[in-house]
Amino acid sequence: MTDLDFENWTCPVPLRDTPAVVMGHGGGGAMSGELVQHLFLPAYGPIELTDSAVLPVGAGRIAFSTDSYVVKPMFFPGGSIGDLAVNGTVNDLAMSGATPLYLSVAFILEEGTLLTEVGRIAKALGAAAAAAGVRLVTGDTKVVDNGSGDGVYLNTSGIGTVPDGVTIAPTRAAAGDAILISGDIGVHGVAVLSVRQGLEFETTVRSDTAPLAGLVSAMLATGADVHVLRDPTRGGVAASLNEIARTAQVGIEVTERSLPIPAEVADACSLLGLDPLQVANEGKLLAFVPAAQADEVLAAMRAHPAGAGAHRIGTCVPAHPGMVVARTALGGTRVINMPIGEQLPRIC
Amino acid sequence: MTDLDFENWTCPVPLRDTPAVVMGHGGGGAMSGELVQHLFLPAYGPIELTDSAVLPVGAGRIAFSTDSYVVKPMFFPGGSIGDLAVNGTVNDLAMSGATPLYLSVAFILEEGTLLTEVGRIAKALGAAAAAAGVRLVTGDTKVVDNGSGDGVYLNTSGIGTVPDGVTIAPTRAAAGDAILISGDIGVHGVAVLSVRQGLEFETTVRSDTAPLAGLVSAMLATGADVHVLRDPTRGGVAASLNEIARTAQVGIEVTERSLPIPAEVADACSLLGLDPLQVANEGKLLAFVPAAQADEVLAAMRAHPAGAGAHRIGTCVPAHPGMVVARTALGGTRVINMPIGEQLPRIC
Repeated sequence: MTDLDFENWTCPVPLRDTPAVVMGHGGGGAMSGELVQHLFLPAYGPIELTDSAVLPVGAGRIAFSTDSYVVKPMFFPGGSIGDLAVNGTVNDLAMSGATPLYLSVAFILEEGTLLTEVGRIAKALGAAAAAAGVRLVTGDTKVVDNGSGDGVYLNTSGIGTVPDGVTIAPTRAAAGDAILISGDIGVHGVAVLSVRQGLEFETTVRSDTAPLAGLVSAMLATGADVHVLRDPTRGGVAASLNEIARTAQVGIEVTERSLPIPAEVADACSLLGLDPLQVANEGKLLAFVPAAQADEVLAAMRAHPAGAGAHRIGTCVPAHPGMVVARTALGGTRVINMPIGEQLPRIC
Repeated sequence: MTDLDFENWTCPVPLRDTPAVVMGHGGGGAMSGELVQHLFLPAYGPIELTDSAVLPVGAGRIAFSTDSYVVKPMFFPGGSIGDLAVNGTVNDLAMSGATPLYLSVAFILEEGTLLTEVGRIAKALGAAAAAAGVRLVTGDTKVVDNGSGDGVYLNTSGIGTVPDGVTIAPTRAAAGDAILISGDIGVHGVAVLSVRQGLEFETTVRSDTAPLAGLVSAMLATGADVHVLRDPTRGGVAASLNEIARTAQVGIEVTERSLPIPAEVADACSLLGLDPLQVANEGKLLAFVPAAQADEVLAAMRAHPAGAGAHRIGTCVPAHPGMVVARTALGGTRVINMPIGEQLPRIC
């Protein structure tokens, strides 16, 4: 889905001649039905949605995840709240080693939101689901009065199946693990912020929103014993590394120089007083693997489009358990703290 | 959970001395973690929540459902948005014949909402989940700026397992089916409206919010071939019956006199110009069963606390496919239309 498609997409039918969401669209009656029939379903593609979808699964373990999305603005360079809602939940599933299968999608619409905007978001959702290989199977739409929302809020929940023998969890991080990242960091946050603040860069920074399940499959196909996977979204790389260090009670040491921060991201962050390590990513993952298997996993990552920029950024160490430390270019160290509050509100 | 508990419940810890939600609670950093650790988890009870929960399921079919909740006000006689969010999704699963197992819970908090209110809602969620026999397994919290929300919006998604041989779907409604209802109608909508409009009745009308999975189990245990189950929430009995009639292309005939509308509901509706058949219920179900098995199913319903007030209200007929008709006390008929928009916004 390109930006051009968003621009040109219009509602397939004039829904009772209203160009905008009205309270009646949330009533569970005829208008609700029309919204699903004439807007959501055509936008999603050829699918069926039911209140409660009945789905086949194999015996074994499933992964189950949920996220709400409140990103502002709803459209930004490289994506929209629709893509984000699919990729974010697909990625949460993938981070537990699961193959994502099914998604639910629930809209909270603010009265007065243009139906063309709702439609573009729904179309982005459908396209992202197709790209990620997941099926939208159940949905819900609520409408809140003008001034009690902000355009469109989304929730997606997802179900995947976890292959036998796969156990990926933050508790498994261990001294000696190599820490890998799949590519450049800070891109999503800066892309959203650039439109929000009206910043101009020499080249447009586009969100990295992307599904990561394929990359994870490729990594697991090496047979390596992947200990931890994490997509560093809200709170960025700093929050993810700190959470893992605390949960597993290991020390983490990263090499500052090895952190792949694009120049535009570094510039924007220094302009705005942000720490790029705390900026959200929406298409990157951190992986903790035994050092002996790191090269093999890195090679598999680099061979996949979503991991072309993969790097090793650090190591788990027995020293300073629960703490994340960066080794600077001059050979010194500094602590990377857990972010406290919110430097970039409503980034996802 | 009684109203008294709501009133007396306070936050377990003063979270950084702020009595209200701030943007930082949504940042994915330390403050987000504190909210989960010190507020959500103690409120929910002894559970574990992860970004992506890995769960055992048997082979076979699962049911998957989602709903967002935006009810206003968040607390009303007989319940709160917390109970509603559990029971609503549990009931969607039960309506496909599934045994509900797991729930996700996602909050969208408006900046400035009192943490004690968030805590009371979380406590109601935990208590309702325990009462319904489902586990809260994964969650998410987002914060939106003041004026872009309205206190607390919730989403719950749910997973259940569908027993072999059970196929319950609106397409299965067939001429000859008896139509049963599990009890009084219109209660939830009038309960919410009474606080919203400051209405006073002789007796307080309390929401009927309740989980229905136990009732459904008892009905299925009779061995009857239950064709359709539906909980008449938004749009009420009128919307549910019309949807089923259209989907299955059968005619539906209900006996007006047999509709169990309590006097308080009838009074409130006539005062406010509402049709009680369009008012939301949150603890009732409609069942379509072969006429020959109706008595047996009704007996099982009446023997269960959630179905004590069960009645037969109508029949599926070959005439007027797709249309719902009421037979009046005088022997005439009137059409029960699909509600168009929204007579009671934000009722669930």
